[in-house]
Amino acid sequence: MEKTPQVYIVMGSDSDLPVMGEAVKILKEFGVPYELVLASAHRSPGRTARLAAEAAGRGVRVIIAGAGAAAHLAGVIAAHTSLPVIGVPIDATPLQGLDALLSTVQMPGGVPVAAMAVGRPGAKNAALFAVRILALTDGALKVRLESYIRGMEAEVERKQAVLDQQEKVS
Amino acid sequence: MEKTPQVYIVMGSDSDLPVMGEAVKILKEFGVPYELVLASAHRSPGRTARLAAEAAGRGVRVIIAGAGAAAHLAGVIAAHTSLPVIGVPIDATPLQGLDALLSTVQMPGGVPVAAMAVGRPGAKNAALFAVRILALTDGALKVRLESYIRGMEAEVERKQAVLDQQEKVS
Amino acid sequence: MEKTPQVYIVMGSDSDLPVMGEAVKILKEFGVPYELVLASAHRSPGRTARLAAEAAGRGVRVIIAGAGAAAHLAGVIAAHTSLPVIGVPIDATPLQGLDALLSTVQMPGGVPVAAMAVGRPGAKNAALFAVRILALTDGALKVRLESYIRGMEAEVERKQAVLDQQEKVS
Amino acid sequence: MEKTPQVYIVMGSDSDLPVMGEAVKILKEFGVPYELVLASAHRSPGRTARLAAEAAGRGVRVIIAGAGAAAHLAGVIAAHTSLPVIGVPIDATPLQGLDALLSTVQMPGGVPVAAMAVGRPGAKNAALFAVRILALTDGALKVRLESYIRGMEAEVERKQAVLDQQEKVS
Amino acid sequence: MEKTPQVYIVMGSDSDLPVMGEAVKILKEFGVPYELVLASAHRSPGRTARLAAEAAGRGVRVIIAGAGAAAHLAGVIAAHTSLPVIGVPIDATPLQGLDALLSTVQMPGGVPVAAMAVGRPGAKNAALFAVRILALTDGALKVRLESYIRGMEAEVERKQAVLDQQEKVS
Amino acid sequence: MEKTPQVYIVMGSDSDLPVMGEAVKILKEFGVPYELVLASAHRSPGRTARLAAEAAGRGVRVIIAGAGAAAHLAGVIAAHTSLPVIGVPIDATPLQGLDALLSTVQMPGGVPVAAMAVGRPGAKNAALFAVRILALTDGALKVRLESYIRGMEAEVERKQAVLDQQEKVS
Amino acid sequence: MEKTPQVYIVMGSDSDLPVMGEAVKILKEFGVPYELVLASAHRSPGRTARLAAEAAGRGVRVIIAGAGAAAHLAGVIAAHTSLPVIGVPIDATPLQGLDALLSTVQMPGGVPVAAMAVGRPGAKNAALFAVRILALTDGALKVRLESYIRGMEAEVERKQAVLDQQEKVS
Amino acid sequence: MEKTPQVYIVMGSDSDLPVMGEAVKILKEFGVPYELVLASAHRSPGRTARLAAEAAGRGVRVIIAGAGAAAHLAGVIAAHTSLPVIGVPIDATPLQGLDALLSTVQMPGGVPVAAMAVGRPGAKNAALFAVRILALTDGALKVRLESYIRGMEAEVERKQAVLDQQEKVS
Repeated sequence: MEKTPQVYIVMGSDSDLPVMGEAVKILKEFGVPYELVLASAHRSPGRTARLAAEAAGRGVRVIIAGAGAAAHLAGVIAAHTSLPVIGVPIDATPLQGLDALLSTVQMPGGVPVAAMAVGRPGAKNAALFAVRILALTDGALKVRLESYIRGMEAEVERKQAVLDQQEKVS
Repeated sequence: MEKTPQVYIVMGSDSDLPVMGEAVKILKEFGVPYELVLASAHRSPGRTARLAAEAAGRGVRVIIAGAGAAAHLAGVIAAHTSLPVIGVPIDATPLQGLDALLSTVQMPGGVPVAAMAVGRPGAKNAALFAVRILALTDGALKVRLESYIRGMEAEVERKQAVLDQQEKVS
Repeated sequence: MEKTPQVYIVMGSDSDLPVMGEAVKILKEFGVPYELVLASAHRSPGRTARLAAEAAGRGVRVIIAGAGAAAHLAGVIAAHTSLPVIGVPIDATPLQGLDALLSTVQMPGGVPVAAMAVGRPGAKNAALFAVRILALTDGALKVRLESYIRGMEAEVERKQAVLDQQEKVS
Repeated sequence: MEKTPQVYIVMGSDSDLPVMGEAVKILKEFGVPYELVLASAHRSPGRTARLAAEAAGRGVRVIIAGAGAAAHLAGVIAAHTSLPVIGVPIDATPLQGLDALLSTVQMPGGVPVAAMAVGRPGAKNAALFAVRILALTDGALKVRLESYIRGMEAEVERKQAVLDQQEKVS
Repeated sequence: MEKTPQVYIVMGSDSDLPVMGEAVKILKEFGVPYELVLASAHRSPGRTARLAAEAAGRGVRVIIAGAGAAAHLAGVIAAHTSLPVIGVPIDATPLQGLDALLSTVQMPGGVPVAAMAVGRPGAKNAALFAVRILALTDGALKVRLESYIRGMEAEVERKQAVLDQQEKVS
Repeated sequence: MEKTPQVYIVMGSDSDLPVMGEAVKILKEFGVPYELVLASAHRSPGRTARLAAEAAGRGVRVIIAGAGAAAHLAGVIAAHTSLPVIGVPIDATPLQGLDALLSTVQMPGGVPVAAMAVGRPGAKNAALFAVRILALTDGALKVRLESYIRGMEAEVERKQAVLDQQEKVS
Repeated sequence: MEKTPQVYIVMGSDSDLPVMGEAVKILKEFGVPYELVLASAHRSPGRTARLAAEAAGRGVRVIIAGAGAAAHLAGVIAAHTSLPVIGVPIDATPLQGLDALLSTVQMPGGVPVAAMAVGRPGAKNAALFAVRILALTDGALKVRLESYIRGMEAEVERKQAVLDQQEKVS
Repeated sequence: MEKTPQVYIVMGSDSDLPVMGEAVKILKEFGVPYELVLASAHRSPGRTARLAAEAAGRGVRVIIAGAGAAAHLAGVIAAHTSLPVIGVPIDATPLQGLDALLSTVQMPGGVPVAAMAVGRPGAKNAALFAVRILALTDGALKVRLESYIRGMEAEVERKQAVLDQQEKVS
């Protein structure tokens, strides 16, 4: 990643990588430069605050933060930056992500976090939401985004054809 | 509102106005032109799809959608536009917003919605999140946003002083 | 399936087929012509609206829609047709179907969806509910339905005999 | 109610009348003859079974059943009839309807109940769902139903105009 | 089982046998004659009502009923007998027993069901609760029950000794 | 209450009296001698253990225990007696009784508690369940219990007549 | 409060004062010097980190932190100090404290927070838990604590006498 | 363990050992003498009360109690001692720890329990919280605790380096 990152993908723990990898895939697919960052709201609070505070100065425009359990990461980052922060709740405890979801989404008035779904679909959508933000001022990205959206509709129709074929055979 | 709206504030029902009014207040405070739109995912699906599809062409850059119960509004709008869509779950049923929260935040991979907290703090934060997006490319707005953030910290200190005064008296 | 379908079984994703296959089995058992349709409320909103709006004209009388996560599919279909729509919540996320259940059942007043149980029993019951509706005006189907209902009671008695036998032996 | 009822509205307790009255209003508006029936799954099980078993013979075509707490009413009725049964969970305990919702919707495979939302919107939608079923074979009712659906969309537009007027003034 | 059963162990489905077998083990251990009964509240409502109504006349004194999903079985049985009825919620759906628990425990005033824990510990305790009831008027059973209770305390102390041994070694 | 109590109604706090009064009413109506006991599992653990251990010796046959929050009362009492113990979860916290319900019902295998519904219906049913137990060996009480059960069915029919009258007038 | 505070009572907002006042009452009753501090994890992150980091140096020995919604306050403070931190979840949103509870208690391994009950009882217990910690090395405080504990048991007995009196009269 | 234990690690069942072993590891790492104790609130109530009441006299300063289901253990222990008691909810039932969590954390005012997260992270944090308490008056332990805290931050940075290396390669 030689280019200045436009997106930070921050994780509370390296065990979150399989989930947050879904965000990586999307950003690679769209050609958006990103950086993977480990920073725990609780185990490395100083590092987290510093990374959040310095992100805008480094050219970062959107921060994605994924964490499980009492997932404070996205909220803590949002408290240290004026950039848009997207939170991905990860199901890492027996409570199956309800803890991470409520810890991420129920931010008090004043400091917003954009919460996504629990787990992999949330990580994927976090990257797509970052793309929607960046595409507001990047025409080429907007073209790729709209092509991606049309592609999803086409994919549904392609799968319908497969299904019809199977039904005929069965 | 003579100016082209930069933000749509869409509501599923006019009974959601007391909640979504928190978003209005913030956008007014920041001087961001907006438009209040009624559109129900279920009672007026055609209108909702049309408004979402035409928003970008009208100059809208962010859509905020608030709804209660099986809150499909933000998801349906996100399906018809490539703009960033922010969802506000509203507590409008005996289940106290858990239904609206899960209906808003648990979007499947491919079509992102940025979920905020249930109710008024969520509506306020939806507007502040829209401001964070718009401030990425609007220097004057960024100045106001950073002043707002500093103001919150100052307000905490001001209230501490009041509290200290009360403690001395008591 | 040469005959005009009386029932649409719509799925948000082909990964829902193992669950919705329970509905297929019942409709085959009762000889009710059906059609399997892929349509995502979010990834193919236009296709979904069109299919829903045109269903009645094609002779369809009941629509079954299964989806997981923020399961908007049944509600969106119900918004585009006056046919009875039956929703099957699918457990496809770490929240184990509570998200899909609330997104399906908590429809606001005006646009009804008939929600079934989460997962396979719900898919089976969706088809049986469609049969109950169709049997209102189809005497032969009603005979099969009442025989099916009596068969369930007989099956309980048959299994009791097996159990009694095992108890004697043990 | 001189005419043969097409719909039974069954309640577990007369304290459920304020909620189930929403179903009454809709059936009156659509001119569908109905009968209000008190029958508790637990306090009057024989009566409930008898009413369910005899309903079809009396000309009833759809049964709506509303109950709170461990809401067994709709399921018990569905066990004694082959008619379509619609269940309305009522929030009558400190658990705010989650108990009634799960007791109504989570029917095991074999005996379907069509669950609606908790409380008043659910009672209203139960009646509208009954209308959707009856309209399959009643052209005049279908006309009224489609007019009702169009009316909801028009109402959204009418309220938008009111809102626009208020915004201009404010 | 030659003797008149004092306890009925009723199950909604033979798939519940692995769970309800815990009740069987306890009743065998205490020498309480029982009978295993299959009866579904929904698939065999007539049979269920009849078995419940005739139980007292057959000499049964306590009825244990285990069921999953919208677990109406214990409540329906309690409606047809004046015997004490004990309900065991079984985790048989993706909602992991919360549905069965609320359907069993939230009985409306007038018709009591004694709810136990979800799953195997609940089935075991249902039998132990039946023993506590029967021991009120059966001195020999009371002696066995109190010996069982003392045995649990002794078992804790025995396991402590094992643990102490392991700790010394480690 | 001059007579030896057959039932203890134990409460964790005198603020639980309005709820547990429902149990008192039923026991008075059935003429079952009872005693109201205050004993907190946490604030007066010695007293609670002593009361539970001595209850059987005093002639008590069933213990009803009502408590809110982390409702340990019924479980702690069941650990100190071999009598049947009935637990009433009380909604005394913002979590609305879910905490008390799970703390009461989820007893581990070995020490059973018979859990009733949250709040007043649960307190009423606790007393009715005690009556069902006592009626096993008290013929006169059994007669009153069966009359009570028939009375509930008659009451449903009486209220139906009132409802029919209202419908005719309206 | 002239003396060096031994306990900080930190609140995320002055609207939390009515709840946290329960902690104040207990500390006053036990004569433990404390200081009331306003510090928001999100609106004043720098101030919160600084106060937490400097607390030990100022002689503070225990920190109590109360917050609602996505209650990150106690966790953030625990990340900046090695003192014991006690968290009080406050019910400040429509989700009734479940959000604050999970955000407070589900801390990931490494950084502990001692969670109390939701709301006022939790605030009271936070102070009592601080007293239990301080009493480990303060004999006079331990005497007051044990007297307080005995007082609770005496109070239960006193209220029993009142209840017995009322029962005799009624 | 020759030394007087400073911490009791109490478990309701030896099946809880894999979870509570996380607490053992931490206490060993910090050189804090501890004792593993089996004591069930329900199966061995006398033993539990005795152990709790005698702990302080034996030199114990903090008690950690882990239990699943209706987890009354920590609360019962706290009722019999004035020492600080830390509760670890264990996910041992189909409800996945929500039952144990609410039974542990929702203690009524007067008798505090410090609740940790569900399962292993909670057991680890229970030991770390005990260390934070003990370190208040043990300078050497405080040095180790602060080194542990700095070590967590260093570990995050070390893992970042590994991640950066992987990214370069991929």
